[in-house]
Amino acid sequence: VNLEDVLPGGVGRLSSGSRNAITDVDGVAVGNRTLDEPAAVNTGVTVVEPTDAVAFEQPVTGNAFVLNGFGKSTGLMQLRELGTIETPLALTNTLDVGTAASALVDHSLEAAGPDVRSVNPLVLECNDGYLHDIRGRHVSATDVHAAIDAAGESVAEGAVGGGRGMTAFGRKGGIGSASRRVAVAGEPRVVGVLVLANFGRLRDLRVGGVPVGQRLAAESATGDAAPGNDDDGSIAVVVATDVPLTARQLGRVAKRAPLGMARTGGYAHHGSGDLAVAFSTAPGDADTAADAALDPVFEGAADATEEAILSALFAADRTEGRDGHVVDALDAAAVEDALRSYPWG
Amino acid sequence: VNLEDVLPGGVGRLSSGSRNAITDVDGVAVGNRTLDEPAAVNTGVTVVEPTDAVAFEQPVTGNAFVLNGFGKSTGLMQLRELGTIETPLALTNTLDVGTAASALVDHSLEAAGPDVRSVNPLVLECNDGYLHDIRGRHVSATDVHAAIDAAGESVAEGAVGGGRGMTAFGRKGGIGSASRRVAVAGEPRVVGVLVLANFGRLRDLRVGGVPVGQRLAAESATGDAAPGNDDDGSIAVVVATDVPLTARQLGRVAKRAPLGMARTGGYAHHGSGDLAVAFSTAPGDADTAADAALDPVFEGAADATEEAILSALFAADRTEGRDGHVVDALDAAAVEDALRSYPWG
Amino acid sequence: VNLEDVLPGGVGRLSSGSRNAITDVDGVAVGNRTLDEPAAVNTGVTVVEPTDAVAFEQPVTGNAFVLNGFGKSTGLMQLRELGTIETPLALTNTLDVGTAASALVDHSLEAAGPDVRSVNPLVLECNDGYLHDIRGRHVSATDVHAAIDAAGESVAEGAVGGGRGMTAFGRKGGIGSASRRVAVAGEPRVVGVLVLANFGRLRDLRVGGVPVGQRLAAESATGDAAPGNDDDGSIAVVVATDVPLTARQLGRVAKRAPLGMARTGGYAHHGSGDLAVAFSTAPGDADTAADAALDPVFEGAADATEEAILSALFAADRTEGRDGHVVDALDAAAVEDALRSYPWG
Amino acid sequence: VNLEDVLPGGVGRLSSGSRNAITDVDGVAVGNRTLDEPAAVNTGVTVVEPTDAVAFEQPVTGNAFVLNGFGKSTGLMQLRELGTIETPLALTNTLDVGTAASALVDHSLEAAGPDVRSVNPLVLECNDGYLHDIRGRHVSATDVHAAIDAAGESVAEGAVGGGRGMTAFGRKGGIGSASRRVAVAGEPRVVGVLVLANFGRLRDLRVGGVPVGQRLAAESATGDAAPGNDDDGSIAVVVATDVPLTARQLGRVAKRAPLGMARTGGYAHHGSGDLAVAFSTAPGDADTAADAALDPVFEGAADATEEAILSALFAADRTEGRDGHVVDALDAAAVEDALRSYPWG
Repeated sequence: VNLEDVLPGGVGRLSSGSRNAITDVDGVAVGNRTLDEPAAVNTGVTVVEPTDAVAFEQPVTGNAFVLNGFGKSTGLMQLRELGTIETPLALTNTLDVGTAASALVDHSLEAAGPDVRSVNPLVLECNDGYLHDIRGRHVSATDVHAAIDAAGESVAEGAVGGGRGMTAFGRKGGIGSASRRVAVAGEPRVVGVLVLANFGRLRDLRVGGVPVGQRLAAESATGDAAPGNDDDGSIAVVVATDVPLTARQLGRVAKRAPLGMARTGGYAHHGSGDLAVAFSTAPGDADTAADAALDPVFEGAADATEEAILSALFAADRTEGRDGHVVDALDAAAVEDALRSYPWG
Repeated sequence: VNLEDVLPGGVGRLSSGSRNAITDVDGVAVGNRTLDEPAAVNTGVTVVEPTDAVAFEQPVTGNAFVLNGFGKSTGLMQLRELGTIETPLALTNTLDVGTAASALVDHSLEAAGPDVRSVNPLVLECNDGYLHDIRGRHVSATDVHAAIDAAGESVAEGAVGGGRGMTAFGRKGGIGSASRRVAVAGEPRVVGVLVLANFGRLRDLRVGGVPVGQRLAAESATGDAAPGNDDDGSIAVVVATDVPLTARQLGRVAKRAPLGMARTGGYAHHGSGDLAVAFSTAPGDADTAADAALDPVFEGAADATEEAILSALFAADRTEGRDGHVVDALDAAAVEDALRSYPWG
Repeated sequence: VNLEDVLPGGVGRLSSGSRNAITDVDGVAVGNRTLDEPAAVNTGVTVVEPTDAVAFEQPVTGNAFVLNGFGKSTGLMQLRELGTIETPLALTNTLDVGTAASALVDHSLEAAGPDVRSVNPLVLECNDGYLHDIRGRHVSATDVHAAIDAAGESVAEGAVGGGRGMTAFGRKGGIGSASRRVAVAGEPRVVGVLVLANFGRLRDLRVGGVPVGQRLAAESATGDAAPGNDDDGSIAVVVATDVPLTARQLGRVAKRAPLGMARTGGYAHHGSGDLAVAFSTAPGDADTAADAALDPVFEGAADATEEAILSALFAADRTEGRDGHVVDALDAAAVEDALRSYPWG
Repeated sequence: VNLEDVLPGGVGRLSSGSRNAITDVDGVAVGNRTLDEPAAVNTGVTVVEPTDAVAFEQPVTGNAFVLNGFGKSTGLMQLRELGTIETPLALTNTLDVGTAASALVDHSLEAAGPDVRSVNPLVLECNDGYLHDIRGRHVSATDVHAAIDAAGESVAEGAVGGGRGMTAFGRKGGIGSASRRVAVAGEPRVVGVLVLANFGRLRDLRVGGVPVGQRLAAESATGDAAPGNDDDGSIAVVVATDVPLTARQLGRVAKRAPLGMARTGGYAHHGSGDLAVAFSTAPGDADTAADAALDPVFEGAADATEEAILSALFAADRTEGRDGHVVDALDAAAVEDALRSYPWG
């Protein structure tokens, strides 16, 4: 049972791109470096390259929205001021953000030549400390470089890269991706999303809108006490598009990602770093879209976020971690059963 | 058929207060002044009084969140700076905000004595121009005063007060309200919400999470071309609670209202004024809650927002307006049918 | 003695435009409506028209920055979301903001045709309640329309229009204006500023940077207890430019206005509405300037703000107001003496 | 010639604390680790410890304001959300922020015990790349720990710690500090400031408000083309106080730091990371001050910032750096001459 079987039409009314992934936006590449060693190390790095050029030399226009700022992401201040992204985006665990930031700096210094003395690394994070020995600070600069080197159009989902140790809705979470085709001012465009999903309680899970988590939690041996990040989960969302947009407009787009998150059952808990970064790959001299034409982009961003989260859940495998901690995969068959028998009363 | 029949358990897992309305928060009162004259005038004013004292003399702590700022609400700048609400909140149509603001000023000058020379009126708005002769600027100061005078614990819903001419999901919208009981640091508390719902397309409507709007739109004579505010709808949300919170914390609470909005199918369209104001009625010398105790408040705010929107739809009656415009009531039986036959294929 | 005598080179190193006023930016017009009746009424409206077209039909790009939000200005929410100004800007007293907003709505409904049903009026304010019977709500829609009708290239300064009853640094304040010529990407451009100055304590006044207020306050019969708005003064700054800028960039420009304010001795007191609105009159299809070219614009905005405040002080006449309140004009000769004898030993 | 000689009364009307440094606020400690090797390495780390307890276990209330966000500081997102500072603050060079962040994480993991799995490190930065081989990434975790270990009440100024390679107004800048005694609600309190000053053009320098930089630049061999960071300088300001304040109020305090910066002649250039962090050392259960009592705190924050910047300039020595780059110390005697002969004609 996979997501397509449970929700044949996917989420919402828009169609997906050919890969149904963020890399449906031309030029965007995704790479993973996964660290897993039995019973202790479950972490990694996922890199989103916003352009096939050197990012520092050809920054893309971007912006961010923070729904809940209990998080350690870095690079957002300059992103908001200048509206540009000048490094690949790295997604990793909370305590290795500094390492990843330094690695992105080194990467840019090397790629962009000897006169560069200022780089704004963009690193997003969630906390995988339930499954992973996060205090061990296992991610190295080499791992970040490996993720960059591995970047391509294919997007692995689930317990990979930065998503290796993440938990969502009391079940195994991690990396998910989806895309939507939209028409903006008559032009065919794409909105792509990649999420690092590490949030939510099982009882709150909604699939296709249906609150299946109520039933799953009732039937679960662990019930509400599902393992993982009941209180301190987070989600990082990356939204890419080829629609030519200003930084102000991309800030508007980023604000729609939480709408998709909400529809999966997330409440943006106190201890959550809930944020979205949005960027446009359109060349700098393109005429930017009118604000009045943005509704399809908003819809695409919300729907692709909702689907990317579900996709991460359906893709992720049961994972054993530190100190005997185990997080099961979501039981897709049970989801299907719950969904098909809804409403229940 | 009413909302309780369609969703017997309501929205989410928390129980409602005795009125299932914002007035379940002690001291909060709601009043309406409805203006309707055949075929032209469909508007009004809804007032939320945050305290049973004179607001200017005993301001409550508050804050706001703007999801999409295409709107003309006033008073938010000072609310964010000082974290206090010093007048009743008025909800009315877009073009009569100035009139309502002036009326709140006069009300406060009179209520608070001859030395007062500075008042920050708080007015939220949506655009009822599809049904209402909004250009006629029909709301007067007298209407605002009448709404204040009418304020009490009973909350009328649907096409009343400021909601008289509003449209939501292509069907009649307006005022809705709901509440949730929450436990914060062991104390029983209440979160109450009142919405002015004027947003959304029929095809996007979700009830209890189920995308019933897909079916309703397919079966509708007007289909996607449902009348009203396809592109420029708005929603104003007022969240009240008796949990003692700082202004910073209330800003966090206000950010959860859009999560409930999203679950009804809203995308916060370009032309939407989507915002939430949150306030606490707790006395100023109460010990404020710890941030780590806020999750139930977040959940209550999101769930009550979702239910208040649905409640507005279920309560609102078919309304005839200017130039032959008509907006039907939501067909609750059709919603029930769609919901019970989901998934459909 | 006037400002040019005291500071022959003006403020900073940039030269002024031909009028040394905001109307040096092509298309910008300023109009005043002054209300003064002996011993009670000292208020008015100043209007800045950002373009010689109907603003609603040809909005200009704009943004705002709030240094201290103890104020009742309206229209900022939509300005920040969309980055456009669609009405003239009105500056008036605190309690008549609603009246002015309604008048701007009516003006736009009439000017822009019968299909317009949504208008975002932009009104800035300061509190003239020390000299003016502000509780009397004397400004009418007619006054706003009169200010619009009076708009032209000549800019009156001092106790006129919205500045009629304002106090700055314990002396008579009000409207001031200045401009700077700047080169941006090789093109000659203009930055113009208009202020409504109603803030500051005499002891803090700095002219040309020199803290002359220390001496003036020591010599003043009233000393620190200078009349007026010791605690609750405000300043509204309007920055205009013909540099083609995005809304994001104009937000950056608006943030420089307080730097000029600071140099006159302002601290942005608790009770102050300190804000700046910046707009560009460049046509929408102009290529926007690179961020790296903005430094001259920042410098011009700060310097013109500093000079506009001083200009308001030097231009404003002694004014008698309600209940025997009197605010003297700044003693320009004493300023000159203090400045020329600085440092004082 | 030192600052006290040039400005006998210091800046403003408030008196200084006994050290005239940020450590006049009880519990605050400052430590430096300076790295200098001939002709290449001129950098370091300055640490501000907000409390004499382990910060992670007893976080202080804080907030931040970003005037210009061209910078790479980290930790601000969570600071704004939760209003707490849970690590020492580190100030270092732009490209070693990641290293410093990781070192603060390790420090906190060790200090706060084995159950800690989430730490928000707070690192501010300026770019010392004119004098320093910044691409060499010379700062190590050991250097950060050494700065923490060195923390005490004595505050070194000038070309030390993170300030080792910084340039301000075309002359040697770096670390500066000052404090002000204020009365808040009748209680004697302290506001202390520490700056990392790396901004400004010589021609714009103002001392005691007087634009002495005009004269210094005219007389300088290098004139406007003073070396260093003409375009991309930055300033980081740390404001400490023992006034009990909420995070919201501390955000208001942080906004006053740029007013002091402006009075030294800064314009917050495009390429500048201009930001201020403010925190309160008052115990969490103290009754917070009323907003209406904040004016002295605002004044102290602005004045201490102005003086701390000047103090950094007067304290810093001529420094030789990479590739033959040299930055002279400010010629204090020339400043004194210019100031005493002002106005100049």
